[in-house]
Amino acid sequence: MRKLLGGKGANLAEMTSLGLPVPYGFTVSTEACTAYYNDGKNISEEIKNQVIERLNELEKLSGKKFGNKENPLLLSVRSGARVSMPGMMDTILNLGLNDEVVEGLAKVTGNPRFAYDSYRRFIQMFSDVVMEIPKNYFEDIIDNVKKQKGAKLDTELTTEDLKNIVKLFKNVYHENIKEAFPSNPQKQLMESIKAVFRSWDNPRANTYRRMNDIPYSWGTAVNVQMMVFGNSGENSGTGVAFTRNPATGENKLFGEYLINAQGEDVVAGIRTPSHIDSLKDIMPNIYKEFSDIAQKLENHYLDMQDMEFTIENGKLYMLQTRNGKRTAEAALKIAVDLVDEGKISEKDALLRVDPKQLDSLLHPQFCKKALEKATPIGKGLAASPGAACGKVVFSADDAKKLNSHGEKVILVRLETSPEDIEGMAVSEGILTVRGGMTSHAAVVARGMGTCCVSGCNDIRINEKEGFFELGNQKICKGDYISLNGSTGDIYGQKIETSSAEISGNFKKFMDWADKFRKLDVRANADTPKDVEQAISFGASGIGLCRTEHMFFDGKRIKAIRKMIVSKTKEERETALNEILPYQQKDFEKIYEALKGLPMTIRLLDPPLHEFLPQNENDIKELSEELSMSVSELKSIISDLHEFNPMMGHRGCRLDVSYPEIAVMQTKAIINAAISVMRKHPNYNIEPEIMIPLIGDIKELIFVKNIISNTADYLIKESQLDVKYKVGTMIEIPRAALIADEIAKQADFFSFGTNDLTQMTFGFSRDDAGKFLKYYYDNKIYEFDPFERVDETGVGKLIHMAYELGKKANPKLKVGVCGEHGGNPISIEFFNKIGLDYVSCSPYRVPIARLAATQAAIKEMN
Amino acid sequence: MRKLLGGKGANLAEMTSLGLPVPYGFTVSTEACTAYYNDGKNISEEIKNQVIERLNELEKLSGKKFGNKENPLLLSVRSGARVSMPGMMDTILNLGLNDEVVEGLAKVTGNPRFAYDSYRRFIQMFSDVVMEIPKNYFEDIIDNVKKQKGAKLDTELTTEDLKNIVKLFKNVYHENIKEAFPSNPQKQLMESIKAVFRSWDNPRANTYRRMNDIPYSWGTAVNVQMMVFGNSGENSGTGVAFTRNPATGENKLFGEYLINAQGEDVVAGIRTPSHIDSLKDIMPNIYKEFSDIAQKLENHYLDMQDMEFTIENGKLYMLQTRNGKRTAEAALKIAVDLVDEGKISEKDALLRVDPKQLDSLLHPQFCKKALEKATPIGKGLAASPGAACGKVVFSADDAKKLNSHGEKVILVRLETSPEDIEGMAVSEGILTVRGGMTSHAAVVARGMGTCCVSGCNDIRINEKEGFFELGNQKICKGDYISLNGSTGDIYGQKIETSSAEISGNFKKFMDWADKFRKLDVRANADTPKDVEQAISFGASGIGLCRTEHMFFDGKRIKAIRKMIVSKTKEERETALNEILPYQQKDFEKIYEALKGLPMTIRLLDPPLHEFLPQNENDIKELSEELSMSVSELKSIISDLHEFNPMMGHRGCRLDVSYPEIAVMQTKAIINAAISVMRKHPNYNIEPEIMIPLIGDIKELIFVKNIISNTADYLIKESQLDVKYKVGTMIEIPRAALIADEIAKQADFFSFGTNDLTQMTFGFSRDDAGKFLKYYYDNKIYEFDPFERVDETGVGKLIHMAYELGKKANPKLKVGVCGEHGGNPISIEFFNKIGLDYVSCSPYRVPIARLAATQAAIKEMN
Repeated sequence: MRKLLGGKGANLAEMTSLGLPVPYGFTVSTEACTAYYNDGKNISEEIKNQVIERLNELEKLSGKKFGNKENPLLLSVRSGARVSMPGMMDTILNLGLNDEVVEGLAKVTGNPRFAYDSYRRFIQMFSDVVMEIPKNYFEDIIDNVKKQKGAKLDTELTTEDLKNIVKLFKNVYHENIKEAFPSNPQKQLMESIKAVFRSWDNPRANTYRRMNDIPYSWGTAVNVQMMVFGNSGENSGTGVAFTRNPATGENKLFGEYLINAQGEDVVAGIRTPSHIDSLKDIMPNIYKEFSDIAQKLENHYLDMQDMEFTIENGKLYMLQTRNGKRTAEAALKIAVDLVDEGKISEKDALLRVDPKQLDSLLHPQFCKKALEKATPIGKGLAASPGAACGKVVFSADDAKKLNSHGEKVILVRLETSPEDIEGMAVSEGILTVRGGMTSHAAVVARGMGTCCVSGCNDIRINEKEGFFELGNQKICKGDYISLNGSTGDIYGQKIETSSAEISGNFKKFMDWADKFRKLDVRANADTPKDVEQAISFGASGIGLCRTEHMFFDGKRIKAIRKMIVSKTKEERETALNEILPYQQKDFEKIYEALKGLPMTIRLLDPPLHEFLPQNENDIKELSEELSMSVSELKSIISDLHEFNPMMGHRGCRLDVSYPEIAVMQTKAIINAAISVMRKHPNYNIEPEIMIPLIGDIKELIFVKNIISNTADYLIKESQLDVKYKVGTMIEIPRAALIADEIAKQADFFSFGTNDLTQMTFGFSRDDAGKFLKYYYDNKIYEFDPFERVDETGVGKLIHMAYELGKKANPKLKVGVCGEHGGNPISIEFFNKIGLDYVSCSPYRVPIARLAATQAAIKEMN
Repeated sequence: MRKLLGGKGANLAEMTSLGLPVPYGFTVSTEACTAYYNDGKNISEEIKNQVIERLNELEKLSGKKFGNKENPLLLSVRSGARVSMPGMMDTILNLGLNDEVVEGLAKVTGNPRFAYDSYRRFIQMFSDVVMEIPKNYFEDIIDNVKKQKGAKLDTELTTEDLKNIVKLFKNVYHENIKEAFPSNPQKQLMESIKAVFRSWDNPRANTYRRMNDIPYSWGTAVNVQMMVFGNSGENSGTGVAFTRNPATGENKLFGEYLINAQGEDVVAGIRTPSHIDSLKDIMPNIYKEFSDIAQKLENHYLDMQDMEFTIENGKLYMLQTRNGKRTAEAALKIAVDLVDEGKISEKDALLRVDPKQLDSLLHPQFCKKALEKATPIGKGLAASPGAACGKVVFSADDAKKLNSHGEKVILVRLETSPEDIEGMAVSEGILTVRGGMTSHAAVVARGMGTCCVSGCNDIRINEKEGFFELGNQKICKGDYISLNGSTGDIYGQKIETSSAEISGNFKKFMDWADKFRKLDVRANADTPKDVEQAISFGASGIGLCRTEHMFFDGKRIKAIRKMIVSKTKEERETALNEILPYQQKDFEKIYEALKGLPMTIRLLDPPLHEFLPQNENDIKELSEELSMSVSELKSIISDLHEFNPMMGHRGCRLDVSYPEIAVMQTKAIINAAISVMRKHPNYNIEPEIMIPLIGDIKELIFVKNIISNTADYLIKESQLDVKYKVGTMIEIPRAALIADEIAKQADFFSFGTNDLTQMTFGFSRDDAGKFLKYYYDNKIYEFDPFERVDETGVGKLIHMAYELGKKANPKLKVGVCGEHGGNPISIEFFNKIGLDYVSCSPYRVPIARLAATQAAIKEMN
């Protein structure tokens, strides 16, 4: 029923039927949410009536009355989508209070302080969540009252203080809304349900969905439950716990709680909570009951559970259970352990780890030597593992700004809040002053696979002036710091990082993964270092070796520029001959690193003007180098200018205009293969030469002839038996449309989904940023088609080209080398249509391997 | 057999079987040409042997011997493709002569002058055509000898002069080729056949094919015939004639001849020939025989014939007949006359006129008033009708250069030659000093529908210094002149031109055309003037009314710019409200001009930066107008900069970002319709609003909702029963791929084949020029895909989208509004796949009507 009731609602129902202590309640379904949006953001009378009916039943079950001052029923109203979106949507607690009911609550409970604490919490939450009055207006009031009273903790405030606060809160409400705070509990409820529905469409929920591939159409359910009060005294409390450690995967109850508090106090990180173990000493029975329930739930769901609970006057209530978010490391350990414990199969285990999450394990770690020399300046909680190094920023906006300039940043905050989510996404690491292992920062960072150190109380932060102090060191905005998310160590300096490797549980898990996979996974790489990294991550070869990067170094760029400004074929050939030995050497090194694994090499792709300077000084310098007048050089540069460079003179069009470029590149490739084969006769080297930007069959034949004539001659000369393949990128819509013709002339296809997406949508990636935001805002697009392949349009073209190609040439090998090759959802699509391989960046290879495995398993199931 | 033998070869065979006097000969087939190219430009032994076999038969038939000095057989070697390509390919006459044979010929004929005249012609042609030695080397020698001798005409040269010329010619050959002139007749023959094959691939043939949609794969045949000699004395001659007048269509033998000359003298226009009528007086029997043959041939081919003949010592030989090229005016008259004469049906007649040719009738004519005031400064032959006015240039290169800057040019030449073809194509008119009605200039100009005045002997031209003198006026390069191709008048001034109308034969013919047509023909127009022109040319409505042109005038551009620099929606709306009344007025005027015919209006399409200035001064001026600092304005302009504007923020993307633009445009359209309907209740106005650049279904729904909400409100207010349609451009490949989804939300599709071609091929029209020349040179592309729709790729997408769309919404109306909508071959394709309409520029409407008719008739046949 997850689809209808949302995750939270379904699990509450399931816990109830397992006989666990769940507060009475009901769920407003996701369909009601869809109806709300379809009805122009209105709740229909029908749904309203159903809510009231259920409320009546709830009153009967609880024996309390909603809005009744004798025996008041208070409600919690919480969102719950089909999949968990922690902190993205809204919750309102203590609903049903007004000036009369609060007095009743005080009387019934004999605890006026509790009653007024609940009332001020309700006003605060309702104002914030439902009416969007800034939170800090209310926080400032509490801080002021605390200061006046010399109180440090909220718990030190008296009933009178709280009554005073309630009065001040209501004034703030009145000032902002120009109406009195609503005293009608039914109105409070309906407005709150609407607010939860509305929260489905808030910017941070939209961002979260885009990051996590959750469709907008799903909607959220709303869970309405009888309040139980963790804030009703010292015999009460509230907490969050996991059946296993979410950071390491260790099989041991893990969690935190606060006495005399409500749930939001734990999650928001306002007070630092106690470890769950200590509950054993304070409330041994409750602890026993809770840990039994935890075990029962894990065995029921066969996965690590993340649970919320409240203790009201010595009685335990379960507020929520869900499959817990975990670090990648923990996810792997839990998956492997569950198999070892005989609870789940390898196949099941493979489906339990989100491939995207592996990213965190593939990120650089600190170089051991650099780390040995460094001394931490402080320590926080090891909230999300991995190493991070970057420049300090104090706001999500600054994080985005610096990141857009290519800087690595570390976001330092008193505490993070859902508004920070985009800034967190671009940061290398996150450091917070307040909050525990289950604070917002910790939960979100783990979800993203981003390194996080939380709750470092020693930090004195001054966001306004842009610095913080820790361990006698003053760190200003823009200074480097380093974080170790696995230990909590904080370093006031830059520490070199090095790349990760696959071992232990990770290796065991990935070995399972390779058993079920149908898609081959290759890497995009063009240096021996990247090639080695890719192989160590399990790539079966190189699917895209770009040759243009090799042209930018030292003497080569000079020769390339000479080539570009050449006026005759002969001049061009002379310049190309200067480049040949470098290019050949590059390929030799890569073939050595590959030790016989296959490699697809793409001929020169970018427009030539990319190799020429644009600013005055560089032009002057180059003109001297080339013994050419500045004006002549400028005129060449201006001749090369293109209105739409993406759709200009590039790819195989260069080889058609200047066949000598293809000749030189073919020579370099074939000579390199011959030379490495002579050295290592056991390496099976069969160069795969890939022609980019093909759009016509005659164009392909023309360039292919240049390649074969050159290659065949060299091979004959060498007297070696060298085989080679010639294939094409499919990245122009026309190529996809005539894929049958092309397949007859090609040994392989590689879909260049970046360009194919641009041409099929008719917008350039560089320019789309300007209008795509309006498309997201208006829900026209929910996902970035450059991150996740557009199955409807681009995917249709890929599928069509695949079918046409395989039919015309059954031996054709077909893969993808665009960025979608490393995107799990896209990989599922490529698996479905039957491609042979994907190729992605080396750091995405394990992700792609797992995604391909999951796709294959899902297909089997 | 036209396919195998070429047009010339097939007609020679046909004439022979009709019993007409054709010199003996044989045809080397087009298949041999294909084999020549497939064999790496070699003639295989097999084909060589076949040629020699046929040659032996020819010797037997003629009773002469090839290469034999006693009774020599001389040959003519002429190209002949499936369709006639006048002057594009090569011919060698008098083949088989050498120092010995020429003496034999002199003896046999008793005419040494004739023998040496033939010999010098042969050396000259062989050197030029086969060995590519520049012609003028030889012409200079003749001119020198003539000057030495004080001779004006070639015929004044003596045998000794010609012997001397032969010696000098052979020296030139030796100097250039470093070998003696080949004396072996068989070698001469094989090299000549190869040269004809080679000429199939020369640049001017390639250009001609591209202009006339002739595939490269067809190849040319070679016709080898016994020479008959028009240059063997005063009882000999050669000529060219048409069964009807090719300029006017008049049903009367029309042609020219030269006494004692060979064919190339007539065609090249070196001597000005006599009218065919005068042959009646000089050689009455020959005239009678020839005119009988002419009639026979016309009755046989049921079309006007263009014939070449030679008279050798009083005997008539037919060298060629073909359907004659004619002016559009003549083509219409002949087609109508042939129907009236009961010879062909209306359907047949409709297939006899090339739609492209109608273009010349649709070109502007001189304004009568302006013409009355002007006095001609000279007169030439009325070689190709129509009026032209432009700046004088003296070379094809200058013509192309000036034309590329948007200038109208008139090409003035001593005589034109096939090298000039591209320059002629871009000229408004052509004026030559030498040459008759069948000279190169005249034939080519008529084919192109370009105005031409030829053979104005009074002109004294100085190409080097860039001027010519005529009638006491000195006209320099860049000065304006005007030509009347229908009268031959030349004016040394600019004369205003006005547009043509459809009447007389043209009207009769077009009325027939409309009987058979399936495709509806609309026009692209956005001014009342263009709309009226389009209707007078038979458009059934407007298929594309662009709205952006309306934004450039005076106060509107200011308001548009205000809109663009707006920072808020309110500011934008204020600016748009300033534009609204102008835009509405424009639509009202157009609706009035349309008198109830339908119109499709496209919402704003170009990127906004196109409306902002780029240079410093204009920016400064605008900043003052807008009361904005220069730096602020510059920063807005730079923010609007796009890397690939074609793939940027334009089309419906503007409406998604700024819905207020679509609101304003919808208001203008609907209000205009309402206002004109109130004035003219009998006009049936149903606005068709077209959304450009759609790529996604939600995008369409979003913009469509803006339109309907706005329109429905206005219509309700008006209390009129106004209907309107909303449709889309299909110009993004993705839209074509999801056309079924789009069709459910659209009333009509209009394929924007310009953009669709760009996106499908992945190259921009503005940039492709840089590399397309290499594609043409290497035969990768034979046609410009922006002129003629690419049926294989883009066409496949169009066909697919059409099928998907019609299936999902059978009421969907589907058309084309890109430039292909006026291209006859593309129209045939659109007819075939079943589209409902094409829309093209007003001046192409009659062309499209006829092309659509021909497509329908061909389909019926």
